Amino acid sequence: MARKPGKGRSEGSRPKNGAASRKLEGLAQAVVEMARKKKDPEVLIPARVLSNVAFNEKTRHIEMGSAKQSRNFFNYGQAKRFMQTLLVGSKCKELVERGKTASIRQIYYMSKHSIKGTNEKTFDDQNESDPILEDLEVALDSLREELHVFADTRGNLGGPITLIDAGNTIDCTATGSAGYAVPSIVEPDVIQFKKCEARFILHVEKATIWRRFHEDGFWKEHQCIVSHGQGQPARGMRRLLRRMHDELKLPVFVLMDCDPWGYYIYSVIKHGSINLAYESRRMAVPDAKFIGVSAFDYERCEMSDDVKIELDQNDIKRCKQITEYPWFADRRAWQKEIQKLLQNGFKMEVEAMISKDLEYLTKEYVPAKLKDKKQWLD
Amino acid sequence: MARKPGKGRSEGSRPKNGAASRKLEGLAQAVVEMARKKKDPEVLIPARVLSNVAFNEKTRHIEMGSAKQSRNFFNYGQAKRFMQTLLVGSKCKELVERGKTASIRQIYYMSKHSIKGTNEKTFDDQNESDPILEDLEVALDSLREELHVFADTRGNLGGPITLIDAGNTIDCTATGSAGYAVPSIVEPDVIQFKKCEARFILHVEKATIWRRFHEDGFWKEHQCIVSHGQGQPARGMRRLLRRMHDELKLPVFVLMDCDPWGYYIYSVIKHGSINLAYESRRMAVPDAKFIGVSAFDYERCEMSDDVKIELDQNDIKRCKQITEYPWFADRRAWQKEIQKLLQNGFKMEVEAMISKDLEYLTKEYVPAKLKDKKQWLD
Repeated sequence: MARKPGKGRSEGSRPKNGAASRKLEGLAQAVVEMARKKKDPEVLIPARVLSNVAFNEKTRHIEMGSAKQSRNFFNYGQAKRFMQTLLVGSKCKELVERGKTASIRQIYYMSKHSIKGTNEKTFDDQNESDPILEDLEVALDSLREELHVFADTRGNLGGPITLIDAGNTIDCTATGSAGYAVPSIVEPDVIQFKKCEARFILHVEKATIWRRFHEDGFWKEHQCIVSHGQGQPARGMRRLLRRMHDELKLPVFVLMDCDPWGYYIYSVIKHGSINLAYESRRMAVPDAKFIGVSAFDYERCEMSDDVKIELDQNDIKRCKQITEYPWFADRRAWQKEIQKLLQNGFKMEVEAMISKDLEYLTKEYVPAKLKDKKQWLD
Repeated sequence: MARKPGKGRSEGSRPKNGAASRKLEGLAQAVVEMARKKKDPEVLIPARVLSNVAFNEKTRHIEMGSAKQSRNFFNYGQAKRFMQTLLVGSKCKELVERGKTASIRQIYYMSKHSIKGTNEKTFDDQNESDPILEDLEVALDSLREELHVFADTRGNLGGPITLIDAGNTIDCTATGSAGYAVPSIVEPDVIQFKKCEARFILHVEKATIWRRFHEDGFWKEHQCIVSHGQGQPARGMRRLLRRMHDELKLPVFVLMDCDPWGYYIYSVIKHGSINLAYESRRMAVPDAKFIGVSAFDYERCEMSDDVKIELDQNDIKRCKQITEYPWFADRRAWQKEIQKLLQNGFKMEVEAMISKDLEYLTKEYVPAKLKDKKQWLD
């Protein structure tokens, strides 16, 4: 069943490049307007503090609340940050207008200079400019990618999908032995889906495991996309998973190590992260399912004790932390899973499955997991 | 000038897949032979110790000497390592025969088991199996990639080269906004060069800088390949640079941060690494040139003081270490460069060039460097 995404939908959901530009202009215009009216110019920034973050039970997103902080020009404590906000905003505007993109480090170098007639620098280091960029994202309700700022590139995929990336048509069944490299900016003005014959997405933790699936012909046999994020997936990979899920209606299955870090990576893909709660709405995939490795698999799959890796104090502490996150706390199956991990006293890697046979993971373990909904953790 | 690599040459330099298999068999056969003759079975392993590593002034490779260590079966202190060597060898043989590859972690899981009738494990952790694999590489004079073992995948490239990777024809002018993902295994049985119109290779340190060059159309304008290794390049990238240099006769230029770590990464690309000296012969590119960023560029390019990052104690210590490495010690220009860095008291990133203008790096700095041989460090 080839699925050609309807033209209407993909155009409809495409944030126009002009939108970011208009939002940036709007921010500046409002400041000019206030100055003209002899009011103290201010910028309103949604509060990026833990107390303004909550788990939305209905959407199952980690979301920001509605609290806002104002940043004023005629306020000794806020004037510098006010100036920095407008400065970074103007650099983003420049990027959008020149049709260029820059990394957060490059934004820092572009924005840093001495203020005329003083020895004062606009920024002392990147720790100052990064949060300003995040402020802008929430204030304008735009992802940084829409402001033409890119993050780390990390993650690859393979499978029966053809996409257009920066004008290049890319058939992801034929991108070589490391797969298609997912860029940082995957917004619809850069990446369009041309054709998709995949039925679902399997997202794995590591490149080495991805290679196992790729080499064993998994995506061909199961008509699916296999992706990896080299650990915690970068923003580009998360956003692309979300877009493929939404626009191509592909279910997402997640395969991670059986340890608290694997569980947490899954939860970031599914619900979003606490740090960057404002982006969940655009990046999280609340329907994603965890298919393994589960702490119950040790007995179920009759593993040998060669695969046990003892939990250390750090693992145990992290288990206790994540048990209390609302998105794990309200799920009985997850509470059982974490309890079982602690009770086992050992963690397991996805690679553990290879101790049975090189192909056990791709020919038996995952196919069986995919077939049996009772094995999924939600 | 399109360069089609001559068929004769590329076939001639192609290590046959069968070669690794034969070498592994030879190792086992020799052991069987010794046992038949009632001799103590032994394996000879070139000594991977610092005292057996030297810098070859003529080839400009970091090379291993000829010292060997024997590993005997009837020796209480060596029997376990003898067994491990043959065990990992047999797993590599299995991989080669099944036409499969595995990561070093996967090799560990494949090889680990309890020895029959005992509680003794063949391996306790991966720290035991990794050096055994390195032993096998040197003993058989094969890169691990030829033994079908893969390492990290890291690094991308773009430019006018068409290659065949695992049967897929890949035009590296059209691989999307993150470029062609260089796999871990790039041996000629996996990757063949089909067509190359590039005149040289520019290798940069980071993905974010690569994107700058890619976006600014550098490889198109200068008819070259631009690659990055996400920091210290992984084996796959180094080996591919070497193959492109050898087989396609492409000069290699290296652009790194101006700090001791940037200098060192350059030296690994050029001469090889101390740890894995035995692979230099297959991976190092002794003709590679360092084109920047140089400590002299601060004044030469009239940079503002915004780009200065103060050297810390660690940087200063590292500078002193690398000054004494023979491949830096015997080069006057490098001694001057390192002295200048220490005298400046600050380092600079490649991104520093962006403080002038977003395109200064790709439109002025690097083109000027490439034109002026006097600016190259060798």
